[in-house]
Amino acid sequence: MKGAVLYGPRDVRFEERETPRILKPTDAILRIAATCVCGSDLWPYRGINKVEKPTPMGHEYCGIVEEVGSAVRSVKPGQFVIGSFFASDNTCPNCHHGYHSSCQQAEFIGTAQASLLRVPLADGTLVATPSLPDDDLVPSLLALSDVMGTGWFAADAAGVKPGSTVAVVGDGAVGLLAMLSAKLMGAERIIAMSRHPARQALAREFGATDIIAERGDAGVAAIQELTRGVGVDSMLECVGTQEAMQQAIRSTRRGGGLGYVGVPHGVALDGQQLFYAHVHLHGGPAPVRRYLPELIEAVWDRKINPGKVFDLTLPLDQVAEGYRAMDERRTIKALLRP
Amino acid sequence: MKGAVLYGPRDVRFEERETPRILKPTDAILRIAATCVCGSDLWPYRGINKVEKPTPMGHEYCGIVEEVGSAVRSVKPGQFVIGSFFASDNTCPNCHHGYHSSCQQAEFIGTAQASLLRVPLADGTLVATPSLPDDDLVPSLLALSDVMGTGWFAADAAGVKPGSTVAVVGDGAVGLLAMLSAKLMGAERIIAMSRHPARQALAREFGATDIIAERGDAGVAAIQELTRGVGVDSMLECVGTQEAMQQAIRSTRRGGGLGYVGVPHGVALDGQQLFYAHVHLHGGPAPVRRYLPELIEAVWDRKINPGKVFDLTLPLDQVAEGYRAMDERRTIKALLRP
Repeated sequence: MKGAVLYGPRDVRFEERETPRILKPTDAILRIAATCVCGSDLWPYRGINKVEKPTPMGHEYCGIVEEVGSAVRSVKPGQFVIGSFFASDNTCPNCHHGYHSSCQQAEFIGTAQASLLRVPLADGTLVATPSLPDDDLVPSLLALSDVMGTGWFAADAAGVKPGSTVAVVGDGAVGLLAMLSAKLMGAERIIAMSRHPARQALAREFGATDIIAERGDAGVAAIQELTRGVGVDSMLECVGTQEAMQQAIRSTRRGGGLGYVGVPHGVALDGQQLFYAHVHLHGGPAPVRRYLPELIEAVWDRKINPGKVFDLTLPLDQVAEGYRAMDERRTIKALLRP
Repeated sequence: MKGAVLYGPRDVRFEERETPRILKPTDAILRIAATCVCGSDLWPYRGINKVEKPTPMGHEYCGIVEEVGSAVRSVKPGQFVIGSFFASDNTCPNCHHGYHSSCQQAEFIGTAQASLLRVPLADGTLVATPSLPDDDLVPSLLALSDVMGTGWFAADAAGVKPGSTVAVVGDGAVGLLAMLSAKLMGAERIIAMSRHPARQALAREFGATDIIAERGDAGVAAIQELTRGVGVDSMLECVGTQEAMQQAIRSTRRGGGLGYVGVPHGVALDGQQLFYAHVHLHGGPAPVRRYLPELIEAVWDRKINPGKVFDLTLPLDQVAEGYRAMDERRTIKALLRP
């Protein structure tokens, strides 16, 4: 079987990898219908996260169950399924509280840019669609595997409510889908922080009512002006840098919510600043599994189309071009078809 | 008029100060019935916060309205009133959202260890009791001016609910009243982190079900053992040091709430640690004003007795002994009677 392997900065190769097989009775093997490149894949691709050895890549996936281990009960061969990038048992106390990405048995699934994938804890991790999907639904179903669930969590963590004024820092796929999520949750005003025309257009399509191109102090000032010096009710931080986090804290109103889903890189929060900011802070790796049933239903019923974030589709063997296009911000998100 | 003045580390004096008078039409002058020494007064008293010049002290107070400015409408001379340590207008957007301590016109009230006190924004800041209180209620009414409201905010910010498992770091007056607050909110299990026999006894009286004397790693391990490795639903941090905050983060379950009200001194939070901890973080200077009406009612109806934290009563002219007794942890909290 062939799949993507990252060798070092900007060196991703499509090459022969070990064919996955059932290792534990709770495993399933999927034949991938679609996978993609994530913004977080760019951290190691750009050399910001060190790559110690050739590393298989990919953590977003959907596809057909090919085979299941002897203990698997909830999915069966032939079904179309979606899962999260963290395998979860869906039964431990953390899953019970809705934090599947902190499952006591959590296992990161990091080999999805390939034609076949082993998924541990299949019963707790995978959710099947009602039947085989029409092909045009596949991108939106794939988006539920990470970016849509992550954007949804950002909005949920920030406490978006009907009538809320919301701002989103980050105009990648997660940021854009955080805007869609805020819209679905009834936000009245959605401010997109973006300086990229194609992304601004999609932001508007997903529900953004205002666009702010400024960043840092100027970005904070622009939001304060739009909100008469009060700040937004809910701030959705979808980047993970210190600058984005500072911008987020300083733009949120007292008592407002800050949901952060960008994996922090070099972020340090000053206790006193946070104390006097009076914000509610919540975030982390999104518990995507929690949201899968309702989001699958919304896609299935064609109420949402999160697959629009994929503005580039490539055959899987051109995975390297997918990384390049995202690295150079020529594309929002690259979908890969085995 | 005489009052307390801090000159430098461990040098607090009772001496002549300027008699307060109405400066703005929204001011009121109170004749103090009781004031006290706060844990946070110990930061400058111990020299941890620098004292640049002789500084009047005290931010907790209740008493009789002596005089009001021409614009004051909601309180009048002769009434017994309680206010927060932050004056607030109770009308700005931040007050509207319940964050009076971040009022757009907030003013710190820091001269309360005296016989008379000027309170700015009297209409928004002061709440009157139904009539003049019995003398035995005065300590509990005084406690509402800061420590009870702050403990209540810690529990509120941490999302304490009926049935919750709660832990409290800090066994000062705020920590102890945070336990009482958690109890009132229906917590089922309340774990007090305390190694001080008198405080442990009051903790039990206020509702603590378990006492943990260990700190740091050992404290975290003890909580994890009590909660079968899951952590508590709600963690109330009432200290403000890096050690206490770390202990709090590491003892909270995924998706649980961490309410922090200890003024941070040297606290820095690592973005990645917080991200993977999956806690809800909320805190800051307590919006005591928000809670005054309901807490006054609870004291008035003798449902709660937060005044029990005062285990030393002194005449105001012995204020220096009050500071010493608290600094040496000979007393939980010292009440001062002018």
